[in-house]
Amino acid sequence: MGIWFTEKQTENFGITAKVKQTYVSEKTDFQQLDMVETEEFGNMLLLDGMVMTTEKDEFVYHEMIAHVPLHTHPNPKDVLVVGGGDGGVIREILKHPEVKKATLVDIDGKVIEYSKQYLPSIAGSLDDPRVEVKVADGFMHIAESENEYDVIMVDSTEPVGPAVNLFSKGFYEGISKALKKDGILVAQTDNPWFHQEIIQNAYRDVSETFPITRLYTANIPTYPSGLWTFTIGSKKHDPLKVKANRFHDIKTKYYTNEIHFAAFALPKFVSDLVK
Amino acid sequence: MGIWFTEKQTENFGITAKVKQTYVSEKTDFQQLDMVETEEFGNMLLLDGMVMTTEKDEFVYHEMIAHVPLHTHPNPKDVLVVGGGDGGVIREILKHPEVKKATLVDIDGKVIEYSKQYLPSIAGSLDDPRVEVKVADGFMHIAESENEYDVIMVDSTEPVGPAVNLFSKGFYEGISKALKKDGILVAQTDNPWFHQEIIQNAYRDVSETFPITRLYTANIPTYPSGLWTFTIGSKKHDPLKVKANRFHDIKTKYYTNEIHFAAFALPKFVSDLVK
Repeated sequence: MGIWFTEKQTENFGITAKVKQTYVSEKTDFQQLDMVETEEFGNMLLLDGMVMTTEKDEFVYHEMIAHVPLHTHPNPKDVLVVGGGDGGVIREILKHPEVKKATLVDIDGKVIEYSKQYLPSIAGSLDDPRVEVKVADGFMHIAESENEYDVIMVDSTEPVGPAVNLFSKGFYEGISKALKKDGILVAQTDNPWFHQEIIQNAYRDVSETFPITRLYTANIPTYPSGLWTFTIGSKKHDPLKVKANRFHDIKTKYYTNEIHFAAFALPKFVSDLVK
Repeated sequence: MGIWFTEKQTENFGITAKVKQTYVSEKTDFQQLDMVETEEFGNMLLLDGMVMTTEKDEFVYHEMIAHVPLHTHPNPKDVLVVGGGDGGVIREILKHPEVKKATLVDIDGKVIEYSKQYLPSIAGSLDDPRVEVKVADGFMHIAESENEYDVIMVDSTEPVGPAVNLFSKGFYEGISKALKKDGILVAQTDNPWFHQEIIQNAYRDVSETFPITRLYTANIPTYPSGLWTFTIGSKKHDPLKVKANRFHDIKTKYYTNEIHFAAFALPKFVSDLVK
């Protein structure tokens, strides 16, 4: 059989993938970091044993967290990514010509370093002149920012370990303050099959902070249940009211103008979670 | 750790689930049949080692294969299910008041028998007076039918083993003949991450047989990649043109009127498969 990696996505369910080789297995200052080559999904980044991104399916997450809010905002010039040290969200952000500056704040420099080395198709845009990379605590960075960003994207790990503060009401309030007056927040908010409470808590906290709150989904095979959610908090612009002429003709593999809207049509058991 | 079931969904990737107990593990005349109780998904039916249905997530598949074509057809009186011995599709079909008769043809009587015993919430409707259950070869049943059904649903296993004929052009032609003049076919056509060729072949064959061909998707956690596809072949009625007043207010957990249309918005890499 050879070597297989297994992630227990719940206590009683997991995925398993054949490993060709292990490049990195290291305890950083913040988390366990593994970078492996798999047969099915190409190179794969794991943090604390959980799949963060793979070469084969990374485009779904990165396109869907970036293009939905960036098309919703009429002129996103300043964009902040909290987490996302693999660089995939930055790559997608740079496809938008309005973006003047994209700032990435990841707490763990090792994620950035090894992503550049082993995931160049994902992390390659981190050296773009429009990008500023800061190795720092995203929670603190937000606390120190005011009226600065058009769009803030929270590309965090699960609400355990270093990311636990990134799922708190205080964090969303900080983001609201860090955003300009028509700014937009988007955050990954886990899956509706195994972690309903993460979605419910995030949706409640965001909707207490922002006048417009929307939940949308995307299919990501290597994430638990294959169905991932994102929560938008917006001060002014509604993702469901984007005009047809606002969409850029950008090169994507998952996102389309049609998917932009269809992603907000929630399965009944999901919409019931946030009623 | 206890006992874990693992399905290799591809040569190099799989899912694994903790098993509480095994009810059945039997070689039938047609396939290996296992019925187990899992911690995460409740009771689970496996055929030839592949997850067919589980108590926790079965509603997605059964609602989505049934309600999309049944709402597309203006008056579906006679409905045929090929395969589907677990009874879940029948349960959903019976929610439509127009349906006078639902016929189930499954080649393996053991699937029906054990589903009634261990999956009563799924198979319970098989004894409804509107239902006729036949243990027979679906391919032969189709070959012997003419101008008989309003909607035919192909709820088959993968195109290996007993279901291999159910993915052939001749089968779709037989279905066309078995359908009335405004009839509709729907078939499960696997996933776009690992089995692109199944989708492409089915779409090509169906579109050579039916004037209207449409692909749609649903999220099913225990199926490979979590993203499943269904292909519709329709002689007259377009699933994208269903009027708002056609929809029944049926009790569902996944399907909604909005999902009916959103499910046809395909990720770009999926729509590229069937261009």
